[in-house]
Amino acid sequence: MLLARVIGTVVATRKEAALTGIKLLLIQPLTPERQPTGKPLVALDSVGAGPSEDVFYVRGREAAFPFLPAEPPADAAIVGIVDHRNL
Amino acid sequence: MLLARVIGTVVATRKEAALTGIKLLLIQPLTPERQPTGKPLVALDSVGAGPSEDVFYVRGREAAFPFLPAEPPADAAIVGIVDHRNL
Amino acid sequence: MLLARVIGTVVATRKEAALTGIKLLLIQPLTPERQPTGKPLVALDSVGAGPSEDVFYVRGREAAFPFLPAEPPADAAIVGIVDHRNL
Amino acid sequence: MLLARVIGTVVATRKEAALTGIKLLLIQPLTPERQPTGKPLVALDSVGAGPSEDVFYVRGREAAFPFLPAEPPADAAIVGIVDHRNL
Amino acid sequence: MLLARVIGTVVATRKEAALTGIKLLLIQPLTPERQPTGKPLVALDSVGAGPSEDVFYVRGREAAFPFLPAEPPADAAIVGIVDHRNL
Repeated sequence: MLLARVIGTVVATRKEAALTGIKLLLIQPLTPERQPTGKPLVALDSVGAGPSEDVFYVRGREAAFPFLPAEPPADAAIVGIVDHRNL
Repeated sequence: MLLARVIGTVVATRKEAALTGIKLLLIQPLTPERQPTGKPLVALDSVGAGPSEDVFYVRGREAAFPFLPAEPPADAAIVGIVDHRNL
Repeated sequence: MLLARVIGTVVATRKEAALTGIKLLLIQPLTPERQPTGKPLVALDSVGAGPSEDVFYVRGREAAFPFLPAEPPADAAIVGIVDHRNL
Repeated sequence: MLLARVIGTVVATRKEAALTGIKLLLIQPLTPERQPTGKPLVALDSVGAGPSEDVFYVRGREAAFPFLPAEPPADAAIVGIVDHRNL
Repeated sequence: MLLARVIGTVVATRKEAALTGIKLLLIQPLTPERQPTGKPLVALDSVGAGPSEDVFYVRGREAAFPFLPAEPPADAAIVGIVDHRNL
């Protein structure tokens, strides 16, 4: 999983039915030192993350797991909010 | 998922049978500020996206989900059209 | 899926049994303007593509779909030959 | 799989239920010469790796295999600790 | 699949049980002209490849296919040894 910060939200009226009711967040990947790195992306939120919170997200097919038995067509989902990390 | 803009279409007479009847669009990935980033790619369209529209697309096996029970051999599919995003 | 051009073939006597009888092509990824981009790779061919033809290919587990019920261990397969694309 | 070194831990109180009780480590990918390369990431630990140990990790859906029948939403898991490698 | 050359081996006493008895090789990805490109990685070997041999390998979940019904947690496996390639 990668670290990221929540930087915005995405609103889409026309979308796959299986995405209905799922919050879509824009997130910016971070280094362990919490500096931005790489490109922002759109991720599903399953843990109630909010603006400016640091999170970690899963990529690929596993992104649908938190929403089973629904299978939203997604490739990124926030699965945890970082309290702190020790280097 | 990543943000992208529809920039064209692809026509292919000879192709996998499971792709028959599915629209193939050329899309250009975008940053949250809607600037082009990275390489254009070919994506299936399941939501009726049109030229110049901003969309988000899913990568990997999940790209086939909108077309179940058909399983088109695809690794990218547009799953939503962006109304607006808040940064 | 990504656009690519067929640039060669690969011959391998010792290989996974499930790959027996499947054509292995070397392909060069292309931009929408049909310029080379990124690294060439080895892909299975399921549509009868030939040298110098422009194709699009699928990556990941979906690469095995055209060969079901056989499950060749592959991560790239050509699934269509491009007639033309409109930008 | 890629080589990496354990460089820290991540603590997250709010997370997917399926991640409960699984150790989350920060790891730095390494070259074969054991130099840092690429971005650190968060990986599940299934083999009891500790700080500064060199490991190899699996990416993608396979990251959940060591924890079956549980299916934690993860895309990286440490699956071995390197004793030595021969070049 | 990508072309690569075998450059070493990895020895790991502590690892996932499902990896027991499977040879782990360090491989260097190659261009079609057989020049090194990108980062070396650890791959399972299912075809008996040896030092300095040129091979092609599969990435992702498909890396486990040669070992079914065992499901080793792996994301790269050598599936063929290159005799020659025609450009």
